[in-house]
Amino acid sequence: MASYHVAPLETLVEQFEKLPGIGHKSAQRLAYHILGISREEAEKFANAIMDAHEKIHYCKVCCNLTDEELCPVCRNNSRDKSTICVVEDPRDVFALERTNEFNATYHVLHGVISPLSGVGPDQLHIKELLARVGDGQIKEVIMATNPTVEGEATAMYISRLLKPMGIRVTRLAYGIPVGGDLEYADEVTLSRAIEGRREL
Amino acid sequence: MASYHVAPLETLVEQFEKLPGIGHKSAQRLAYHILGISREEAEKFANAIMDAHEKIHYCKVCCNLTDEELCPVCRNNSRDKSTICVVEDPRDVFALERTNEFNATYHVLHGVISPLSGVGPDQLHIKELLARVGDGQIKEVIMATNPTVEGEATAMYISRLLKPMGIRVTRLAYGIPVGGDLEYADEVTLSRAIEGRREL
Repeated sequence: MASYHVAPLETLVEQFEKLPGIGHKSAQRLAYHILGISREEAEKFANAIMDAHEKIHYCKVCCNLTDEELCPVCRNNSRDKSTICVVEDPRDVFALERTNEFNATYHVLHGVISPLSGVGPDQLHIKELLARVGDGQIKEVIMATNPTVEGEATAMYISRLLKPMGIRVTRLAYGIPVGGDLEYADEVTLSRAIEGRREL
Repeated sequence: MASYHVAPLETLVEQFEKLPGIGHKSAQRLAYHILGISREEAEKFANAIMDAHEKIHYCKVCCNLTDEELCPVCRNNSRDKSTICVVEDPRDVFALERTNEFNATYHVLHGVISPLSGVGPDQLHIKELLARVGDGQIKEVIMATNPTVEGEATAMYISRLLKPMGIRVTRLAYGIPVGGDLEYADEVTLSRAIEGRREL
Protein backbone atom coordinates (compact mmCIF):
# COMPACT_ATOMS: atom_id res chain seq x y z
CA MET A 1 0.00 0.00 0.00
CA ALA A 2 3.11 2.15 -0.25
CA SER A 3 1.83 4.14 -3.18
CA TYR A 4 -1.74 4.44 -1.95
CA HIS A 5 -2.25 6.42 1.17
CA VAL A 6 -5.46 8.07 2.42
CA ALA A 7 -4.62 9.37 5.89
CA PRO A 8 -8.10 9.71 7.44
CA LEU A 9 -9.01 6.21 6.27
CA GLU A 10 -5.82 4.73 7.70
CA THR A 11 -6.39 6.51 11.01
CA LEU A 12 -9.86 5.00 11.21
CA VAL A 13 -8.55 1.52 10.36
CA GLU A 14 -5.93 1.90 13.11
CA GLN A 15 -8.61 2.89 15.61
CA PHE A 16 -10.73 -0.14 14.78
CA GLU A 17 -7.65 -2.38 14.97
CA LYS A 18 -7.19 -1.37 18.61
CA LEU A 19 -10.52 -2.98 19.52
CA PRO A 20 -10.30 -6.47 21.04
CA GLY A 21 -10.72 -9.28 18.52
CA ILE A 22 -10.56 -6.99 15.48
CA GLY A 23 -7.68 -7.74 13.09
CA HIS A 24 -6.42 -5.66 10.20
CA LYS A 25 -8.81 -7.09 7.59
CA SER A 26 -11.87 -6.67 9.83
CA ALA A 27 -10.74 -3.17 10.75
CA GLN A 28 -10.57 -2.28 7.04
CA ARG A 29 -14.02 -3.72 6.46
CA LEU A 30 -15.46 -1.73 9.38
CA ALA A 31 -13.73 1.47 8.24
CA TYR A 32 -15.19 1.11 4.73
CA HIS A 33 -18.56 0.46 6.29
CA ILE A 34 -18.27 3.75 8.18
CA LEU A 35 -17.49 5.57 4.92
CA GLY A 36 -20.65 4.06 3.44
CA ILE A 37 -23.09 5.12 6.16
CA SER A 38 -24.81 8.49 6.19
CA ARG A 39 -23.33 11.54 7.89
CA GLU A 40 -26.03 11.40 10.58
CA GLU A 41 -25.31 7.76 11.32
CA ALA A 42 -21.59 8.50 11.63
CA GLU A 43 -22.37 11.33 14.03
CA LYS A 44 -24.57 9.05 16.12
CA PHE A 45 -21.74 6.55 16.33
CA ALA A 46 -19.11 9.12 17.29
CA ASN A 47 -21.48 10.65 19.86
CA ALA A 48 -22.32 7.27 21.36
CA ILE A 49 -18.61 6.73 22.03
CA MET A 50 -18.17 10.11 23.71
CA ASP A 51 -21.49 9.89 25.58
CA ALA A 52 -20.64 6.50 27.02
CA HIS A 53 -17.35 7.94 28.20
CA GLU A 54 -18.77 11.11 29.66
CA LYS A 55 -21.97 9.86 31.22
CA ILE A 56 -21.09 6.44 32.55
CA HIS A 57 -19.33 6.15 35.89
CA TYR A 58 -19.37 3.84 38.90
CA CYS A 59 -22.38 3.54 41.18
CA LYS A 60 -21.27 5.02 44.49
CA VAL A 61 -22.60 2.02 46.40
CA CYS A 62 -21.78 -1.07 44.33
CA CYS A 63 -19.22 0.24 41.77
CA ASN A 64 -21.33 -1.06 38.88
CA LEU A 65 -21.64 1.10 35.76
CA THR A 66 -24.42 3.67 35.71
CA ASP A 67 -25.26 7.07 34.27
CA GLU A 68 -26.90 8.23 37.50
CA GLU A 69 -25.67 8.51 41.09
CA LEU A 70 -26.87 5.02 41.99
CA CYS A 71 -27.22 2.07 39.63
CA PRO A 72 -30.74 0.72 38.93
CA VAL A 73 -30.23 -2.17 41.36
CA CYS A 74 -29.10 0.03 44.26
CA ARG A 75 -31.94 2.51 43.49
CA ASN A 76 -34.54 -0.26 43.58
CA ASN A 77 -36.16 -0.47 47.03
CA SER A 78 -37.65 -3.90 46.41
CA ARG A 79 -34.19 -5.50 46.22
CA ASP A 80 -32.81 -7.35 49.22
CA LYS A 81 -30.11 -4.99 50.49
CA SER A 82 -28.88 -7.46 53.12
CA THR A 83 -27.23 -9.76 50.54
CA ILE A 84 -24.34 -8.70 48.30
CA CYS A 85 -23.22 -10.72 45.31
CA VAL A 86 -19.56 -9.96 44.51
CA VAL A 87 -18.66 -10.17 40.79
CA GLU A 88 -15.56 -9.40 38.75
CA ASP A 89 -17.11 -7.42 35.96
CA PRO A 90 -20.26 -5.42 35.08
CA ARG A 91 -21.03 -8.03 32.42
CA ASP A 92 -21.42 -10.60 35.17
CA VAL A 93 -24.19 -8.45 36.66
CA PHE A 94 -26.03 -8.59 33.32
CA ALA A 95 -25.60 -12.37 33.26
CA LEU A 96 -27.01 -12.76 36.79
CA GLU A 97 -29.86 -10.32 36.10
CA ARG A 98 -30.87 -12.46 33.11
CA THR A 99 -31.76 -15.31 35.50
CA ASN A 100 -34.65 -13.11 36.71
CA GLU A 101 -34.45 -14.95 40.02
CA PHE A 102 -31.84 -12.98 41.81
CA ASN A 103 -33.08 -10.26 44.11
CA ALA A 104 -29.95 -9.26 46.02
CA THR A 105 -27.57 -6.38 45.30
CA TYR A 106 -24.15 -6.56 43.67
CA HIS A 107 -20.64 -5.41 44.22
CA VAL A 108 -18.39 -5.09 41.18
CA LEU A 109 -14.66 -5.55 41.81
CA HIS A 110 -13.60 -4.50 38.28
CA GLY A 111 -10.99 -7.22 38.07
CA VAL A 112 -9.44 -10.06 40.02
CA ILE A 113 -6.26 -10.40 42.01
CA SER A 114 -3.67 -11.45 39.46
CA PRO A 115 -0.01 -11.08 40.50
CA LEU A 116 1.10 -12.03 36.97
CA SER A 117 -0.73 -9.04 35.48
CA GLY A 118 0.33 -6.86 38.40
CA VAL A 119 -3.18 -6.54 39.83
CA GLY A 120 -3.21 -6.57 43.63
CA PRO A 121 -6.16 -6.22 46.06
CA ASP A 122 -5.65 -2.45 46.18
CA GLN A 123 -6.51 -2.02 42.51
CA LEU A 124 -9.90 -3.72 43.05
CA HIS A 125 -12.92 -2.17 44.72
CA ILE A 126 -12.56 -4.25 47.88
CA LYS A 127 -12.35 -1.26 50.26
CA GLU A 128 -15.82 -0.16 49.12
CA LEU A 129 -17.15 -3.66 49.80
CA LEU A 130 -15.69 -3.70 53.32
CA ALA A 131 -17.25 -0.28 53.98
CA ARG A 132 -20.68 -1.59 52.90
CA VAL A 133 -20.33 -4.68 55.09
CA GLY A 134 -19.13 -2.52 57.99
CA ASP A 135 -22.56 -0.84 58.03
CA GLY A 136 -24.00 -3.84 59.86
CA GLN A 137 -26.94 -4.22 57.45
CA ILE A 138 -25.37 -7.06 55.48
CA LYS A 139 -26.12 -10.69 56.37
CA GLU A 140 -24.59 -12.60 53.48
CA VAL A 141 -21.96 -12.06 50.81
CA ILE A 142 -22.09 -14.41 47.81
CA MET A 143 -18.73 -14.71 46.03
CA ALA A 144 -19.55 -14.94 42.31
CA THR A 145 -16.10 -14.42 40.80
CA ASN A 146 -15.29 -16.67 37.85
CA PRO A 147 -14.27 -20.28 38.57
CA THR A 148 -10.70 -19.59 37.41
CA VAL A 149 -7.49 -19.64 39.45
CA GLU A 150 -7.59 -15.84 39.84
CA GLY A 151 -11.33 -15.82 40.57
CA GLU A 152 -10.92 -18.47 43.28
CA ALA A 153 -7.96 -16.68 44.84
CA THR A 154 -9.89 -13.41 44.92
CA ALA A 155 -12.92 -15.11 46.48
CA MET A 156 -10.70 -16.69 49.14
CA TYR A 157 -8.93 -13.41 49.85
CA ILE A 158 -12.18 -11.49 50.32
CA SER A 159 -13.85 -14.22 52.36
CA ARG A 160 -10.92 -14.14 54.80
CA LEU A 161 -11.45 -10.42 55.26
CA LEU A 162 -15.21 -10.79 55.74
CA LYS A 163 -15.49 -13.83 58.01
CA PRO A 164 -13.96 -12.11 61.07
CA MET A 165 -16.74 -9.51 60.67
CA GLY A 166 -19.30 -12.24 61.40
CA ILE A 167 -20.72 -12.28 57.88
CA ARG A 168 -21.97 -15.42 56.12
CA VAL A 169 -19.77 -15.79 53.03
CA THR A 170 -20.94 -18.24 50.33
CA ARG A 171 -19.67 -19.28 46.93
CA LEU A 172 -21.68 -20.14 43.79
CA ALA A 173 -22.16 -23.91 43.44
CA TYR A 174 -19.84 -25.82 41.16
CA GLY A 175 -21.24 -28.67 39.10
CA ILE A 176 -22.28 -29.83 35.68
CA PRO A 177 -23.89 -27.12 33.54
CA VAL A 178 -27.60 -27.64 32.82
CA GLY A 179 -28.04 -29.03 29.31
CA GLY A 180 -24.41 -30.15 29.29
CA ASP A 181 -23.11 -33.60 28.53
CA LEU A 182 -21.41 -35.67 31.26
CA GLU A 183 -19.13 -37.16 28.64
CA TYR A 184 -17.63 -33.77 27.89
CA ALA A 185 -17.46 -32.48 31.46
CA ASP A 186 -13.88 -32.16 32.73
CA GLU A 187 -12.68 -34.18 35.72
CA VAL A 188 -12.49 -31.26 38.12
CA THR A 189 -16.05 -30.14 37.36
CA LEU A 190 -17.32 -33.71 37.72
CA SER A 191 -15.61 -34.29 41.07
CA ARG A 192 -16.98 -30.95 42.31
CA ALA A 193 -20.45 -32.07 41.12
CA ILE A 194 -20.10 -35.33 43.09
CA GLU A 195 -18.83 -33.49 46.17
CA GLY A 196 -21.75 -31.07 46.01
CA ARG A 197 -24.45 -33.71 45.37
CA ARG A 198 -27.84 -33.11 47.00
CA GLU A 199 -30.77 -35.26 48.21
CA LEU A 200 -33.52 -35.77 45.63
CA MET B 1 -31.76 -7.07 31.33
CA ALA B 2 -35.19 -5.63 32.08
CA SER B 3 -34.19 -4.30 35.48
CA TYR B 4 -30.74 -3.12 34.48
CA HIS B 5 -30.62 -0.29 32.03
CA VAL B 6 -27.73 2.12 31.37
CA ALA B 7 -28.87 4.18 28.40
CA PRO B 8 -25.51 5.46 27.07
CA LEU B 9 -24.04 1.97 27.24
CA GLU B 10 -26.99 0.46 25.39
CA THR B 11 -26.77 3.14 22.72
CA LEU B 12 -23.11 2.33 22.20
CA VAL B 13 -23.82 -1.41 22.01
CA GLU B 14 -26.53 -0.72 19.42
CA GLN B 15 -24.11 1.34 17.35
CA PHE B 16 -21.50 -1.43 17.37
CA GLU B 17 -24.17 -3.98 16.49
CA LYS B 18 -24.88 -2.10 13.26
CA LEU B 19 -21.36 -2.82 12.01
CA PRO B 20 -21.03 -5.74 9.60
CA GLY B 21 -20.10 -9.03 11.23
CA ILE B 22 -20.57 -7.74 14.81
CA GLY B 23 -23.25 -9.57 16.82
CA HIS B 24 -24.77 -8.61 20.15
CA LYS B 25 -22.10 -10.30 22.30
CA SER B 26 -19.21 -8.79 20.34
CA ALA B 27 -20.91 -5.39 20.41
CA GLN B 28 -21.13 -5.61 24.20
CA ARG B 29 -17.47 -6.57 24.44
CA LEU B 30 -16.46 -3.64 22.21
CA ALA B 31 -18.64 -1.21 24.17
CA TYR B 32 -17.06 -2.29 27.47
CA HIS B 33 -13.66 -1.92 25.88
CA ILE B 34 -14.52 1.68 24.96
CA LEU B 35 -15.51 2.38 28.57
CA GLY B 36 -12.13 1.06 29.65
CA ILE B 37 -9.95 3.20 27.38
CA SER B 38 -8.81 6.69 28.32
CA ARG B 39 -10.80 9.79 27.52
CA GLU B 40 -8.18 10.85 24.93
CA GLU B 41 -8.32 7.48 23.21
CA ALA B 42 -12.11 7.66 23.03
CA GLU B 43 -11.86 11.14 21.52
CA LYS B 44 -9.37 9.91 18.94
CA PHE B 45 -11.75 7.13 17.97
CA ALA B 46 -14.79 9.41 17.70
CA ASN B 47 -12.77 11.97 15.72
CA ALA B 48 -11.42 9.30 13.37
CA ILE B 49 -15.00 8.38 12.48
CA MET B 50 -16.04 11.96 11.79
CA ASP B 51 -12.77 12.82 10.01
CA ALA B 52 -13.08 9.87 7.67
CA HIS B 53 -16.58 11.01 6.86
CA GLU B 54 -15.73 14.66 6.36
CA LYS B 55 -12.40 14.43 4.58
CA ILE B 56 -12.72 11.41 2.33
CA HIS B 57 -14.45 11.79 -1.04
CA TYR B 58 -14.10 10.45 -4.56
CA CYS B 59 -11.09 11.27 -6.76
CA LYS B 60 -12.49 13.41 -9.55
CA VAL B 61 -10.73 11.30 -12.19
CA CYS B 62 -11.00 7.67 -11.07
CA CYS B 63 -13.69 7.82 -8.34
CA ASN B 64 -11.38 6.13 -5.86
CA LEU B 65 -11.38 7.35 -2.25
CA THR B 66 -9.05 10.22 -1.40
CA ASP B 67 -8.74 13.18 0.94
CA GLU B 68 -7.34 15.44 -1.81
CA GLU B 69 -8.65 16.48 -5.20
CA LEU B 70 -6.92 13.62 -7.00
CA CYS B 71 -6.07 10.22 -5.54
CA PRO B 72 -2.38 9.29 -5.11
CA VAL B 73 -2.45 7.14 -8.26
CA CYS B 74 -3.95 9.84 -10.48
CA ARG B 75 -1.55 12.43 -8.96
CA ASN B 76 1.47 10.25 -9.74
CA ASN B 77 3.03 11.24 -13.07
CA SER B 78 5.07 8.04 -13.39
CA ARG B 79 1.91 5.94 -13.73
CA ASP B 80 0.79 4.80 -17.17
CA LYS B 81 -2.26 6.96 -17.81
CA SER B 82 -3.12 5.14 -21.06
CA THR B 83 -4.33 2.00 -19.28
CA ILE B 84 -7.31 1.93 -16.92
CA CYS B 85 -8.07 -0.99 -14.62
CA VAL B 86 -11.79 -1.06 -13.75
CA VAL B 87 -12.59 -2.41 -10.28
CA GLU B 88 -15.74 -2.72 -8.19
CA ASP B 89 -14.48 -1.36 -4.94
CA PRO B 90 -11.67 0.77 -3.42
CA ARG B 91 -10.47 -2.32 -1.56
CA ASP B 92 -9.71 -3.93 -4.92
CA VAL B 93 -7.33 -1.05 -5.66
CA PHE B 94 -5.44 -1.81 -2.43
CA ALA B 95 -5.28 -5.49 -3.43
CA LEU B 96 -3.87 -4.67 -6.89
CA GLU B 97 -1.43 -2.10 -5.48
CA ARG B 98 -0.06 -4.79 -3.17
CA THR B 99 1.21 -6.71 -6.22
CA ASN B 100 3.73 -3.84 -6.68
CA GLU B 101 3.75 -4.71 -10.37
CA PHE B 102 0.85 -2.75 -11.64
CA ASN B 103 1.60 0.67 -13.04
CA ALA B 104 -1.67 1.65 -14.70
CA THR B 105 -4.46 3.82 -13.30
CA TYR B 106 -7.76 2.66 -11.87
CA HIS B 107 -11.43 3.37 -12.19
CA VAL B 108 -13.66 2.48 -9.26
CA LEU B 109 -17.28 1.63 -10.12
CA HIS B 110 -18.44 1.49 -6.46
CA GLY B 111 -20.59 -1.55 -7.08
CA VAL B 112 -21.70 -3.96 -9.79
CA ILE B 113 -24.82 -4.22 -11.91
CA SER B 114 -27.17 -6.32 -9.81
CA PRO B 115 -30.85 -6.25 -10.81
CA LEU B 116 -31.77 -8.28 -7.71
CA SER B 117 -30.42 -5.56 -5.41
CA GLY B 118 -31.86 -2.86 -7.67
CA VAL B 119 -28.45 -1.62 -8.85
CA GLY B 120 -28.45 -0.60 -12.51
CA PRO B 121 -25.62 0.84 -14.67
CA ASP B 122 -26.72 4.40 -13.77
CA GLN B 123 -25.88 3.91 -10.09
CA LEU B 124 -22.29 2.96 -10.95
CA HIS B 125 -19.57 5.38 -12.04
CA ILE B 126 -19.65 4.20 -15.65
CA LYS B 127 -20.35 7.65 -17.12
CA GLU B 128 -17.08 8.93 -15.62
CA LEU B 129 -15.23 6.00 -17.19
CA LEU B 130 -16.72 6.70 -20.63
CA ALA B 131 -15.72 10.37 -20.28
CA ARG B 132 -12.12 9.36 -19.50
CA VAL B 133 -11.99 6.98 -22.44
CA GLY B 134 -13.57 9.63 -24.69
CA ASP B 135 -10.46 11.80 -24.18
CA GLY B 136 -8.60 9.68 -26.70
CA GLN B 137 -5.58 9.10 -24.42
CA ILE B 138 -6.67 5.61 -23.33
CA LYS B 139 -5.36 2.54 -25.16
CA GLU B 140 -6.52 -0.31 -22.94
CA VAL B 141 -9.17 -0.94 -20.31
CA ILE B 142 -8.63 -3.98 -18.07
CA MET B 143 -11.86 -5.27 -16.55
CA ALA B 144 -10.97 -6.39 -13.01
CA THR B 145 -14.44 -6.83 -11.54
CA ASN B 146 -14.84 -9.91 -9.33
CA PRO B 147 -15.30 -13.31 -11.02
CA THR B 148 -18.93 -13.51 -9.85
CA VAL B 149 -22.12 -13.49 -11.92
CA GLU B 150 -22.63 -9.77 -11.27
CA GLY B 151 -18.96 -8.97 -11.83
CA GLU B 152 -18.97 -10.81 -15.16
CA ALA B 153 -22.18 -9.15 -16.28
CA THR B 154 -20.80 -5.72 -15.40
CA ALA B 155 -17.55 -6.46 -17.26
CA MET B 156 -19.53 -7.56 -20.33
CA TYR B 157 -21.81 -4.52 -20.18
CA ILE B 158 -18.91 -2.07 -19.99
CA SER B 159 -16.86 -3.85 -22.66
CA ARG B 160 -19.80 -3.55 -25.06
CA LEU B 161 -19.88 0.19 -24.48
CA LEU B 162 -16.09 0.56 -24.90
CA LYS B 163 -15.38 -1.66 -27.91
CA PRO B 164 -17.20 0.57 -30.44
CA MET B 165 -14.86 3.39 -29.26
CA GLY B 166 -11.91 1.39 -30.63
CA ILE B 167 -10.45 0.59 -27.21
CA ARG B 168 -8.71 -2.65 -26.35
CA VAL B 169 -10.75 -4.22 -23.55
CA THR B 170 -9.20 -7.09 -21.59
CA ARG B 171 -10.22 -9.23 -18.62
CA LEU B 172 -8.07 -10.60 -15.77
CA ALA B 173 -7.01 -14.23 -16.44
CA TYR B 174 -9.00 -17.02 -14.85
CA GLY B 175 -7.16 -20.07 -13.56
CA ILE B 176 -5.92 -21.94 -10.54
CA PRO B 177 -4.70 -19.70 -7.72
CA VAL B 178 -0.94 -19.84 -7.04
CA GLY B 179 -0.26 -22.03 -4.04
CA GLY B 180 -3.67 -23.66 -4.40
CA ASP B 181 -4.44 -27.35 -4.62
CA LEU B 182 -5.82 -28.85 -7.85
CA GLU B 183 -7.83 -31.33 -5.81
CA TYR B 184 -9.83 -28.51 -4.22
CA ALA B 185 -10.24 -26.35 -7.32
CA ASP B 186 -13.83 -26.23 -8.54
CA GLU B 187 -14.77 -27.54 -12.00
CA VAL B 188 -15.42 -24.15 -13.56
CA THR B 189 -12.06 -22.75 -12.42
CA LEU B 190 -10.28 -25.87 -13.66
CA SER B 191 -11.91 -25.78 -17.09
CA ARG B 192 -11.07 -22.05 -17.36
CA ALA B 193 -7.46 -22.91 -16.41
CA ILE B 194 -7.33 -25.55 -19.16
CA GLU B 195 -8.90 -23.17 -21.71
CA GLY B 196 -6.39 -20.48 -20.85
CA ARG B 197 -3.30 -22.75 -20.81
CA ARG B 198 -0.04 -21.27 -22.10
CA GLU B 199 3.15 -22.57 -23.75
CA LEU B 200 5.96 -23.32 -21.34
